[in-house]
Amino acid sequence: MDGMVLGPTRYGKAEVRVVRVAKNGDEHSIRDLNVSIALSGDQEATHLSGDNAKVLTTDAQKNAVYSLAAEHGISSPESFALLLARHFLTTCPYISHARVAVEEYAWARIPGAASRHSFLRLGQETRTALVHADADGTESVISGLRDLVVLNSTGSEFHGFYKDPLTTLPETSDRVLATAVDARWLHEGPTEEWDESYGRARSALLTAFADTYSFSLQQTLYAMGEHLLRSDPHVAEVRLALPNRHHFAVDLTPFGQKNDNEVFYAADRPYGLIEGTVRRSGTASASGSAYDRAWD
Amino acid sequence: MDGMVLGPTRYGKAEVRVVRVAKNGDEHSIRDLNVSIALSGDQEATHLSGDNAKVLTTDAQKNAVYSLAAEHGISSPESFALLLARHFLTTCPYISHARVAVEEYAWARIPGAASRHSFLRLGQETRTALVHADADGTESVISGLRDLVVLNSTGSEFHGFYKDPLTTLPETSDRVLATAVDARWLHEGPTEEWDESYGRARSALLTAFADTYSFSLQQTLYAMGEHLLRSDPHVAEVRLALPNRHHFAVDLTPFGQKNDNEVFYAADRPYGLIEGTVRRSGTASASGSAYDRAWD
Amino acid sequence: MDGMVLGPTRYGKAEVRVVRVAKNGDEHSIRDLNVSIALSGDQEATHLSGDNAKVLTTDAQKNAVYSLAAEHGISSPESFALLLARHFLTTCPYISHARVAVEEYAWARIPGAASRHSFLRLGQETRTALVHADADGTESVISGLRDLVVLNSTGSEFHGFYKDPLTTLPETSDRVLATAVDARWLHEGPTEEWDESYGRARSALLTAFADTYSFSLQQTLYAMGEHLLRSDPHVAEVRLALPNRHHFAVDLTPFGQKNDNEVFYAADRPYGLIEGTVRRSGTASASGSAYDRAWD
Amino acid sequence: MDGMVLGPTRYGKAEVRVVRVAKNGDEHSIRDLNVSIALSGDQEATHLSGDNAKVLTTDAQKNAVYSLAAEHGISSPESFALLLARHFLTTCPYISHARVAVEEYAWARIPGAASRHSFLRLGQETRTALVHADADGTESVISGLRDLVVLNSTGSEFHGFYKDPLTTLPETSDRVLATAVDARWLHEGPTEEWDESYGRARSALLTAFADTYSFSLQQTLYAMGEHLLRSDPHVAEVRLALPNRHHFAVDLTPFGQKNDNEVFYAADRPYGLIEGTVRRSGTASASGSAYDRAWD
Repeated sequence: MDGMVLGPTRYGKAEVRVVRVAKNGDEHSIRDLNVSIALSGDQEATHLSGDNAKVLTTDAQKNAVYSLAAEHGISSPESFALLLARHFLTTCPYISHARVAVEEYAWARIPGAASRHSFLRLGQETRTALVHADADGTESVISGLRDLVVLNSTGSEFHGFYKDPLTTLPETSDRVLATAVDARWLHEGPTEEWDESYGRARSALLTAFADTYSFSLQQTLYAMGEHLLRSDPHVAEVRLALPNRHHFAVDLTPFGQKNDNEVFYAADRPYGLIEGTVRRSGTASASGSAYDRAWD
Repeated sequence: MDGMVLGPTRYGKAEVRVVRVAKNGDEHSIRDLNVSIALSGDQEATHLSGDNAKVLTTDAQKNAVYSLAAEHGISSPESFALLLARHFLTTCPYISHARVAVEEYAWARIPGAASRHSFLRLGQETRTALVHADADGTESVISGLRDLVVLNSTGSEFHGFYKDPLTTLPETSDRVLATAVDARWLHEGPTEEWDESYGRARSALLTAFADTYSFSLQQTLYAMGEHLLRSDPHVAEVRLALPNRHHFAVDLTPFGQKNDNEVFYAADRPYGLIEGTVRRSGTASASGSAYDRAWD
Repeated sequence: MDGMVLGPTRYGKAEVRVVRVAKNGDEHSIRDLNVSIALSGDQEATHLSGDNAKVLTTDAQKNAVYSLAAEHGISSPESFALLLARHFLTTCPYISHARVAVEEYAWARIPGAASRHSFLRLGQETRTALVHADADGTESVISGLRDLVVLNSTGSEFHGFYKDPLTTLPETSDRVLATAVDARWLHEGPTEEWDESYGRARSALLTAFADTYSFSLQQTLYAMGEHLLRSDPHVAEVRLALPNRHHFAVDLTPFGQKNDNEVFYAADRPYGLIEGTVRRSGTASASGSAYDRAWD
Repeated sequence: MDGMVLGPTRYGKAEVRVVRVAKNGDEHSIRDLNVSIALSGDQEATHLSGDNAKVLTTDAQKNAVYSLAAEHGISSPESFALLLARHFLTTCPYISHARVAVEEYAWARIPGAASRHSFLRLGQETRTALVHADADGTESVISGLRDLVVLNSTGSEFHGFYKDPLTTLPETSDRVLATAVDARWLHEGPTEEWDESYGRARSALLTAFADTYSFSLQQTLYAMGEHLLRSDPHVAEVRLALPNRHHFAVDLTPFGQKNDNEVFYAADRPYGLIEGTVRRSGTASASGSAYDRAWD
């Protein structure tokens, strides 16, 4: 149409659920993923005229998830996302960029079971991996997790804040601090040990949350990012989003009782939301459009 | 209005979120509950004319959750539900029956943390407790859990079923069996060891699921109920609802590959749903309206 | 196992999603259902020994949804549920009871569209139907809706309630009253006009909510049930569950402002929950196990 | 810590639920919003050392929502978001940028009600507004909607696509096309008629979806963007994300029936996801970091 143009596009199959069983005799192990693919390239014709000659169907993308899982197994979310991204760049000449986002759900063996093929879903955080890959070989890998819910029942203060005319919050020297960690970290390059790297990152986040005496959730956020960077020299940058899951000490004075920070109301909404980035200083990669795209 | 009458009613505050911290010096522990209260009694006036003289407000019910948590602590979901139910029967003469339903979310200490006040939400099953209490002292306690997600990657067959004209399902001698366990069990009487009883019941469910070679999810259900009853002589009856979370082996033959039960599509809907009851034979309590009400 | 018995069971396919298009030349219309089936009968063998000879597969039950939708169309959720329930009782001799629960999502034509095959999902309440049918021909039909969200911005008071030592709620002569209506009503017998009956019931619920000056949500509940019964002489009983979606007037005095019931905080949890039944007096059917089962 | 730096941050109160009643005698009207605020500026001290002197509390941000709603009313999500953003830039000198995101839930009067204060939540799409504002006066406004669920029961084909070795999808000349529209559009400048602009945009999206004969969802996406741009000369760019909510025609041949595109299975996952941008050609604003930030 006159005066209108097509801007950036991408398309793909989202939320392909794949469970891959690996068998070593009677000893089974499983990986349980949710895979979302977004491809881009020379796709103008289908948008402007419905000519699909350059469209790799989202159904074929789904098939690729299962076919590659069968052929190669799934050794980690990151490596499987890389495998898929490279596949799309080679299987269709009209695709110049592939984005593959993976969620992984953790399972453990059922404790006390005799069988070696019985599993219990852990239900804690969701592990994530995000891969971008270009036809020219450029690749980026971001690992992450979300919904890792943690709580400190003391060791947190909040006071000395700016007071505008609408500030009514009392200052406190002892509060509950709770959050559902959403963290993502960019690797400077691929590794062969994605699971080990993930384990170290997760531990760093947890212990930094637990052992930082906190004067603000902002301070805790920075400490978590810093610990994660220290846990792995190949991580360039960490981005964190921490909802402040407010736990309000209940006022029991109307009932003639006192509340020595023992009884809390866990509120749903609204909640504070603290977002921040911690990165190595002087990393050349810390700006530019390829860098920005890695996180998108 | 002519010819119309008020039937059974109940009312209360639902989903009261309470987190109770217990402190032993620097060693903290927490219980995290969601409490729902439903009271009934002489409540006709408020329905018919809006006369609230016999209505204990749902706000006061909420206050009771916090006040009793402060005074008595929370030693288990069952004991706290009993405490609340008895409270409502004594605090307002117009309440003749109290129903208290509790959900508990499990937390563990953060591994590797130096602090003794830092916790990680486990995110697995939700533990439940349901108490009914009457002014005449009759009480019932049902413990339970839901969303305990388990999977066997082999050891399950399904064949020999009835075939009507619309039956097209192939028979199979090897399939994935997965479910999200929803289980509830009725105690014959109160105990002082609710947490221990819960732990035994949960273990019984898990190992029965894992170690039963299964020809149908129905068979597995019965085995789980039976194991639970055996784990605790004071449990009279178990009710189970097991969604069959279908994991379909992906047909890879169009891609020239074979699938030796290694690659599965985890489907959302529809799903099978198997519900059943296992009880001790000859239990006098296994019928009657009080018994039915215990489960409601 | 010694001393243990199988109690009541049922099984079936849940959440079968079917969209049925009816075509009258270029004029299309659609019905969009979510169907859940639960069958019971002589099913002990599969539970006790995994012998499936009497099991009609849940896959065949799913097939029946699509096959019957194709053959008969879907004229209403109630009539389709009856059709399915009768089908299961005749297709397999080991099924003696069928329960079919249907949710329907409403669509309208897209306003302003030239095409007669374009639809917009309305997104308001979910319509429900629940049918129980026995091999002996006994049938019950319950219609319903849920998530019909309504709000009165005035015309509601709440005072004169019972005060126990934990009652701190202020009395009010003007408040917002809001709820998400969950209503179900039992028909005394089948009709041919399920859609018309539903429309009248829905209107009765809405106008009763709007035009009842309310001294308690309990009073509003009764008025809604009564209006519904009056709207249709063939409805025997109404059951209502009304969450009190609290809208708290925000205290603006710390900011030097007053709040003349114009600014509200819409809370999530906890919430009041009022449940009640309104029925015709003297209905013989108002008790007994068949009657109770109809609602289950 | 050595070698680590704080990157971009933002913080604020999320999901502040406000219902504003406007009264014209007995005639009431309501606006129902969910407001999320994210502020940024000179916030390094709180992250690095827990010094909160430059932190405007998220509690005060929440208070601002209610205080401004009381003082100014809510005439549209866009104007209220602008009001809030400007407020934060002036109330605290350490805030240099404000982002305010608003969701609005639509209500209508209850049909047939005598009262003028009774409302029914429509439950269709959520309307959205996103405002960015800088201390230097730069502002951007993006309007949008999401979860507008639409379906064409015919008038859609899909064929002629690229075939790689994993492509198995059959070509079709008649299919159901359904999606949940997620659309956002950038205004070139503020208007006084946000509600009218929204109404035109929504209509354009709906009629373009209905009346475009479709050879791909990509084509429909472009048509929707183009129609929206035509509906309002002050809109510079539209971004659309359209999940392809697959409705698969059920294969009835095993039952001896044929399916003339009348019976469909509505699948949940996986789904296609088509994302694209349509903009006016030659808009100077169509690149650059301020522009990118407007959408974030």
